[in-house]
Amino acid sequence: MADWLETLDRLAHERAKAGLTRQLRPRAAGDTVIDLAGNDYLGLSGHPRVVGAARQALEAYGLGATGSRLVRGTTDLHTALEETLAGWLGCESALVFSSGYLANLAVVRALSAVCDLVVSDAYNHASLIDGCRISGLPVRVAPHNDPAAVAALLDAHPGRAAVVTESVFSVDGDLAPLAALHAVTSARGALLIVDDAHALGLLGESGAGGVAAAGLTGAPDVIVTATLSKSLGGAGGVVAGPGPLVRHLVDTGRSFIYDTAPPPAVAAGVLAAVEVARAADDRRAVLFRRGAHLAATLRSAGRPVHDPAAGVLSVPAPGPEAAVAWAADCRDSGVAVGCFRPPSTPDGSSRLRLTVNAGVPEEAFARALTVILECAP
Amino acid sequence: MADWLETLDRLAHERAKAGLTRQLRPRAAGDTVIDLAGNDYLGLSGHPRVVGAARQALEAYGLGATGSRLVRGTTDLHTALEETLAGWLGCESALVFSSGYLANLAVVRALSAVCDLVVSDAYNHASLIDGCRISGLPVRVAPHNDPAAVAALLDAHPGRAAVVTESVFSVDGDLAPLAALHAVTSARGALLIVDDAHALGLLGESGAGGVAAAGLTGAPDVIVTATLSKSLGGAGGVVAGPGPLVRHLVDTGRSFIYDTAPPPAVAAGVLAAVEVARAADDRRAVLFRRGAHLAATLRSAGRPVHDPAAGVLSVPAPGPEAAVAWAADCRDSGVAVGCFRPPSTPDGSSRLRLTVNAGVPEEAFARALTVILECAP
Ligand SMILES: Cc1ncc(COP(=O)(O)O)c(C=O)c1O
Ligand SMILES: Cc1ncc(COP(=O)(O)O)c(C=O)c1O
Repeated sequence: MADWLETLDRLAHERAKAGLTRQLRPRAAGDTVIDLAGNDYLGLSGHPRVVGAARQALEAYGLGATGSRLVRGTTDLHTALEETLAGWLGCESALVFSSGYLANLAVVRALSAVCDLVVSDAYNHASLIDGCRISGLPVRVAPHNDPAAVAALLDAHPGRAAVVTESVFSVDGDLAPLAALHAVTSARGALLIVDDAHALGLLGESGAGGVAAAGLTGAPDVIVTATLSKSLGGAGGVVAGPGPLVRHLVDTGRSFIYDTAPPPAVAAGVLAAVEVARAADDRRAVLFRRGAHLAATLRSAGRPVHDPAAGVLSVPAPGPEAAVAWAADCRDSGVAVGCFRPPSTPDGSSRLRLTVNAGVPEEAFARALTVILECAP
Repeated sequence: MADWLETLDRLAHERAKAGLTRQLRPRAAGDTVIDLAGNDYLGLSGHPRVVGAARQALEAYGLGATGSRLVRGTTDLHTALEETLAGWLGCESALVFSSGYLANLAVVRALSAVCDLVVSDAYNHASLIDGCRISGLPVRVAPHNDPAAVAALLDAHPGRAAVVTESVFSVDGDLAPLAALHAVTSARGALLIVDDAHALGLLGESGAGGVAAAGLTGAPDVIVTATLSKSLGGAGGVVAGPGPLVRHLVDTGRSFIYDTAPPPAVAAGVLAAVEVARAADDRRAVLFRRGAHLAATLRSAGRPVHDPAAGVLSVPAPGPEAAVAWAADCRDSGVAVGCFRPPSTPDGSSRLRLTVNAGVPEEAFARALTVILECAP
């Protein structure tokens, strides 16, 4: 074997010894596993209106978008989706990407035209971290959810900074202090970029997201990004904000210009999902009731968990191997739960990551809770 | 208006003056424009088997994958697609991403575990350039398609390098000297990464791509990446190569781990497209005949063009505004052509980019050629 392959094998062996090997577990159509691991928070991925709209677009346009957004990839469905998202989020303009990852890469890089520093929350998602790296801007990492520390970093910096945070954090499900952060940034002429991936559809009036819930809708110095793959049950990403920013992204955004557009069927399905999500107060009520019940039950079983801010609940485990065993036992009993270990966890600790999916039937959800407790280490 | 928005407006104004404004032009379902701009080279995006397979998966799995590949996002369709792609490309293993862009980011970064330098062709795609940047490795840019220059860079470097190139280049459609490059890299213990985006499905036996056409199938020091959105008519990306590399990507690839899986319907459609593409010697014959005819006709009209290596033909224009006007006149006559201006062109020149789509009816293709010549500046 070539020596570079031997090196990769040795690294794999070291990961295995540390309990950090990851395994792909394909699921089949109609598998009966109860989903407390995915991000289909409102259960919309299989909603008849979503699937119906996607099917219709598939017949009408074919599968792929056949080109980048600026060449052949933009259909009237992409444009309609952008207008609908901008209206929902209360932003002047919105731009759809093929993933939230690529949307995040684009937005941080775009701000290098008007900023000379990025301040990034210590627990930010990989796509935001990579966005910082690609932007070429100097990066200061701020302690997690600490507006005073952000203020200090901004005060020490003479130019304009962009502050980057998630709204609901993807691993622990906790909420950023968005109003306090905005008070800090706006007083100092800094911009606030909020990745609303895990709050869109769940928080705020009509599910307009974490930025809306914090009363920041339409603030001219706030830029929102999100994935369309979680509560909207589809795929893709969006950047929403002032018109000139979107104009800048269209003209210069590398991960916008040089990437194939999302399939028209995906745009159509997500568009239908936005319409369903806006009116889905009933589903949101189910989600919050279940989240609170899950947390209360785990706490009475002696597990130190917080009430979820939206659909993500983090449950500490003694170590990576215990977390893996716990998740495996749940899976063997028909319940899918997330298991996060380093390097997926920002603080180096291991945990189960439970998500609440309002589309799971009530009895199944109750059974999942029983299984999780029975399998606990 | 806030001053950062004024700055963005001023930059937009400067781009407008330089003829560099880009415009999104949504197309409707069933538009009758003749497509010489997209990348649906084999016309598979609307193939009944592709659409049928996608529809079936949509009904069976819903729209979104509902999670990342390692959580809930992998279905048996994703696994089947990976096995089929590995078999087609003659590689030990293949890993599917939600886009070619994210696949390219992952592969260059992964090689930082075993390499200490990247040598990147001057005309490489934005995703490869961003991949180099994200990898943290030192980068040397080699002159376009120049194996001797690559050899000199490698000879000057004591450690192990990764050499990154496209097979068929996306803007000019020219072919990299892959066999010569591999002779250079293999003699020096370097790895060769080939982005086969514009050759997959078109070159090589059964359309297995540019690497296959160069006789490099299964070479243990060659890694192939590709998008699934061009000749395969879908969306997504793939990295194919030795098993330990794929293992490394699964365990550590940020843009693999932290990104939602491509929708099951997309995986199913692309899987069907691979099966069609492997057997599509007839479509490939149409494509090459049309490409040669297009080039010969443009040459006899005094346009200095090369025979396309696959489906992309580059036609020089006097400047960005002339290129835009040429493309606009074609569009007004019902023909979509690509128009590439800086910064999308590696050499700073402007051109039409024509693509051959074997799915366009014969008379429509002939008419497109007439329109392009009539509209020429
Ligand atoms: C906070 C956050 N941002 C961005 C993303 C990336 O979005 P996508 O999966 O659409 O690439 C994710 C998850 O996937 C996420 O959790
Ligand atoms: C050479 C090349 N590599 C990578 C990509 C990116 O692939 P995707 O569109 O799937 O992100 C493209 C085009 O989009 C390309 O032309």
